[in-house]
Amino acid sequence: MSENKTHKIHFLPHDIYVDIEEGNTVLDAAHSANIYINSICGGDGICGKCKVVLSKGKVDAPPTTLISSEESENDYILACEAKIIEDLQILVPKETRLEGKKILLDQHEQHSLTWAAVLDKSHFTHNPLTKKLFLTMEAPTMDDNIADHERLCQAIMMDQGVELNVIQTDISILKKLPGIMRQGNWSVTVTVAHRGPVLEVVEIETGDTTQNNYGIAIDIGTTTVVTCLMELTSSKVIDSEAVYNSQMKFGEDYIQRIIYAIQNDFLNEMQKTIVSDINKTIHTLVKRHEIDLNNITSVVCAGNTAMIHFLLCLDPENIRKEPYIPTANFVSPFRATQIGIDINPRCILYALPSVSAYVGADITSGAAAIRLDKEELNCLFIDIGTNGEIVLGNKDWMVCCSASAGPAFEGSGVRHGMRAAKGAVEIIHITRDYEVSYSTIGNVKPKGICGSGLLDCIAEMLRCGIVDRSGNFQQDIKSERLRKKGDEYEFVLIEKEKSGIETDIVITQADISNLVRSKGAIYAALSILIESMGLSINDVSLLYLAGGFGNYLNVRNAITIGMLPDMPTSRIKFVGNTSLIGAKMALISKEAFETVHNIASQMTYFDLMGNPKYMEAFMSANFLPHTNLSEFPSVVEELSS
Amino acid sequence: MSENKTHKIHFLPHDIYVDIEEGNTVLDAAHSANIYINSICGGDGICGKCKVVLSKGKVDAPPTTLISSEESENDYILACEAKIIEDLQILVPKETRLEGKKILLDQHEQHSLTWAAVLDKSHFTHNPLTKKLFLTMEAPTMDDNIADHERLCQAIMMDQGVELNVIQTDISILKKLPGIMRQGNWSVTVTVAHRGPVLEVVEIETGDTTQNNYGIAIDIGTTTVVTCLMELTSSKVIDSEAVYNSQMKFGEDYIQRIIYAIQNDFLNEMQKTIVSDINKTIHTLVKRHEIDLNNITSVVCAGNTAMIHFLLCLDPENIRKEPYIPTANFVSPFRATQIGIDINPRCILYALPSVSAYVGADITSGAAAIRLDKEELNCLFIDIGTNGEIVLGNKDWMVCCSASAGPAFEGSGVRHGMRAAKGAVEIIHITRDYEVSYSTIGNVKPKGICGSGLLDCIAEMLRCGIVDRSGNFQQDIKSERLRKKGDEYEFVLIEKEKSGIETDIVITQADISNLVRSKGAIYAALSILIESMGLSINDVSLLYLAGGFGNYLNVRNAITIGMLPDMPTSRIKFVGNTSLIGAKMALISKEAFETVHNIASQMTYFDLMGNPKYMEAFMSANFLPHTNLSEFPSVVEELSS
Repeated sequence: MSENKTHKIHFLPHDIYVDIEEGNTVLDAAHSANIYINSICGGDGICGKCKVVLSKGKVDAPPTTLISSEESENDYILACEAKIIEDLQILVPKETRLEGKKILLDQHEQHSLTWAAVLDKSHFTHNPLTKKLFLTMEAPTMDDNIADHERLCQAIMMDQGVELNVIQTDISILKKLPGIMRQGNWSVTVTVAHRGPVLEVVEIETGDTTQNNYGIAIDIGTTTVVTCLMELTSSKVIDSEAVYNSQMKFGEDYIQRIIYAIQNDFLNEMQKTIVSDINKTIHTLVKRHEIDLNNITSVVCAGNTAMIHFLLCLDPENIRKEPYIPTANFVSPFRATQIGIDINPRCILYALPSVSAYVGADITSGAAAIRLDKEELNCLFIDIGTNGEIVLGNKDWMVCCSASAGPAFEGSGVRHGMRAAKGAVEIIHITRDYEVSYSTIGNVKPKGICGSGLLDCIAEMLRCGIVDRSGNFQQDIKSERLRKKGDEYEFVLIEKEKSGIETDIVITQADISNLVRSKGAIYAALSILIESMGLSINDVSLLYLAGGFGNYLNVRNAITIGMLPDMPTSRIKFVGNTSLIGAKMALISKEAFETVHNIASQMTYFDLMGNPKYMEAFMSANFLPHTNLSEFPSVVEELSS
Repeated sequence: MSENKTHKIHFLPHDIYVDIEEGNTVLDAAHSANIYINSICGGDGICGKCKVVLSKGKVDAPPTTLISSEESENDYILACEAKIIEDLQILVPKETRLEGKKILLDQHEQHSLTWAAVLDKSHFTHNPLTKKLFLTMEAPTMDDNIADHERLCQAIMMDQGVELNVIQTDISILKKLPGIMRQGNWSVTVTVAHRGPVLEVVEIETGDTTQNNYGIAIDIGTTTVVTCLMELTSSKVIDSEAVYNSQMKFGEDYIQRIIYAIQNDFLNEMQKTIVSDINKTIHTLVKRHEIDLNNITSVVCAGNTAMIHFLLCLDPENIRKEPYIPTANFVSPFRATQIGIDINPRCILYALPSVSAYVGADITSGAAAIRLDKEELNCLFIDIGTNGEIVLGNKDWMVCCSASAGPAFEGSGVRHGMRAAKGAVEIIHITRDYEVSYSTIGNVKPKGICGSGLLDCIAEMLRCGIVDRSGNFQQDIKSERLRKKGDEYEFVLIEKEKSGIETDIVITQADISNLVRSKGAIYAALSILIESMGLSINDVSLLYLAGGFGNYLNVRNAITIGMLPDMPTSRIKFVGNTSLIGAKMALISKEAFETVHNIASQMTYFDLMGNPKYMEAFMSANFLPHTNLSEFPSVVEELSS
């Protein structure tokens, strides 16, 4: 193997040099130089926010519509798409830098990896669930007179190395077979879909249309629905779109929604609501990228058990009643139109499998995304969404539990909480004199605070003594930011004139209590889970933290407030929305899809509610960082310094 | 093993004694005593025609609605249903005996075997394509809290010994799962269907409904559609119903119909026509037997390649154009409602596979029915329907061809020809003084002549010198039966006053020419096929003759006219409608279904039209029995005696 060349990249106006291997992107170089470059999409070449000026050198970059011709003449490039092939000088323009007060990424602030890096690390091979195959066959003769369908099946068999008897074709396809095969002069593109042991021929077209093959990965969260459009030929993420889950009007958490659906005989409407959200996101994406709906051949859905039940219109009633039984954890693939998704009528929908009523496809998908199934040593995987689900295990075993953490870190039940979207404060620093610096997603005026910002906020307020260890405001601090409004104290984070909304952005005493309870539930759950397996936190080699925080998460702050156990931050990885990542992987890799299923089959559900120690552990965790400080030696040291 | 007891049966008024093993039926005993007992249905307990009086002894017979209470008091029983458990005296009443002039079955007249005997001989195990399983599960608890669907799948897995990942369930079933499982107190009946590598859960019901499981086997012939209703729990044939194929109005043979469909863009209407015929027969059957359409879970269809194309609305155009390519020989199972069959919406339709444009699922089904795949020695299988298809082979190889024999032996193109239905003359004897005796199906007044009767007619006319070896009437015979009408000679078989129609039943010179051409095509094809494999007729150990003749076929007569080769009649077996028999077997045995598929995969199609020797062989066979008499030594001897 030839050694990879390295090149020197000079960033201006920072005047920082960094050496980086050929083939990395300019965005990668900026990250390794600790230079913040705006990129909402996480480096997928979608948002167009990472524009930089190439002042010296050449890069290898694909054409993009995100750079105007005027910008192009002025040497603008997208940092995330520009591959390094020689030494460069890069000017990071003002609009691409962090706005407001400048915040340098500290060593604990982890950026979730780019899609390309995550996919590469997963070692899943590219083998989409639905594929387009361009097949060229011999024309029939008197000596080679097998039927059209068998000619096609043999070509598929040769191309895919499958047994002939696993190939199935609906008669609607057979009807057009002779015409298409002859029109195409025996060269056709067939779309095949893996459906359990079957390889189904779902479409046939003349000519080579293999490039027109797209898929949709969806994470159906209780609070948000995130839809991602992918190019199946290349594993490339084209774009994604998120909306709030419109079911919220029927209840903030899914238990409320189940009760609502059952009491009002409203299950069909609940389904229509969620399907309508999905349709909206898909239509936005295909319109924006001028993609024909007929070229979308597969949809993979992850989400918690209740959301998957609502999506499929399956009876969710027994999910909330002891002994908490889902209708189905494993669902066979079916046509997406069967549940009202407005798409190519032959498109297949794959719902990822759940483990139990309270550990859903979001977790199995996430565990596959981080390849927990390949870990030699014990790992913890924590996904903080509307609930907190925790998996402990390695390649040989996995146990999981669900903590009723509530949606505080998703911004719900917090006055100015919001999801990690444009305008959300995602990083907050507070100085000893109570001055607040921050950055927002999209570098626009702040509209609210997302999970990572809330987490920073609590940690910083604890460090500065704005709150005490029980989470109460220290009313005697010398700052006008702390004020009493009505009966309640609140701390002004961003003044009205700097905010993108009509008011000051504050954090209230009730917000803090909510957040403390939420982090306490998570910590209590992971402690009990570890203890139940006869292990201690020292036996955990890696902790993966997932969830809809911002693009960054300060893992040190998560320890400081006692959400995560006191372990070296180098052993904690912030992994973003793993539910969606797993769905994206399953879409483009049958191996990943099967891994999710294997994980779902092997994972053991551990019921916290049935554990008498849980409530005690929860009460002890309702402090900052914890009642028992011996569990957080580094925090004791930090706070006393 | 205990030796089977034998009992003595005394038939009156014949005064014939016969010894027969315990467990055989009274009808079996009558057959072995060479006593003709009327039984249209072939011994399936359907037609109620085989009533006899049990004058001494007892039998083991199931209750039947076909015997009135008055008949029952007079000791009437159905001969085909009455199992022998002791010595008996049986009176065969006049109405059950052969009507008209008495004809004794001669040694060459073969009755096709009863369904029970054929099934037993096939060694296929009872394992229907769709099964109802009554499953009792444990109720879920906190310690055993798998989802409803997985609980069901595990029960199916345990019951059926299948892998979990082959079980698939549509979401329409998942929707009602929790309700049904709880209503049924965790005891449910599931209907599962084999669909290629998948075992699909197609229905779920509370309680034990396993007895309510019925299937439909259909033989779609160019001329007739025969539909058979079967009880899937027991392999029992409940009833069958036949109608003419209404597509006949678009052409007598399928090539004409293909041309009609293409030229008039009439394929959809062609499908509707055939589906309407099928619906008619199914509805007649379920109404007659008070069976709920929802309890019919599977349909198996056999038929020639063109008919299967019409049934599925597949483009048939390339079937008739060189190089003669079907759209599909193998078709994946699908829901019967998808093509308009008016039945339980979840019922699966299995179309049996074809080999080529001119060797269809009727032949693969038939070859499986006679278990050609188990034969050690070379066998010939000849199916005479609207065309004549011939298979030569054994367990190791099979070659097949199709002869354009035309539908003469199905009664088409023959003045008084008719299909083997009630009122058809099925046996004809002609004496040296030209007197005609006959018997009809159903023992009613004759309405026409079916295949076996036509075959007898030609043979007997040749023997008596009514026709010469070229098939021409000998105008100098002394009988008023031979007369000239218009330009053409005809022979009166049955006078108007004895017939069930308004005219004499005759056979014309044109009829004879048609029949001779038809038998000539068959003989030429089988000769060429045998010769092509480097074999002679002496290398053929058994000849199976199938087709819609009557209940009986005089195989000696088939040799005499030169349709079948001159071989000992003991090596010729008349096997009836094997296409339907194979479909019935496939319905109640997955092993049989797979055997049909294996046969279709292994069979090699041999194109007669491309063989220069065929036309010569056909010309030589256009004589009675043949131009080359050395091929028919026994006929030479017979005719000269």
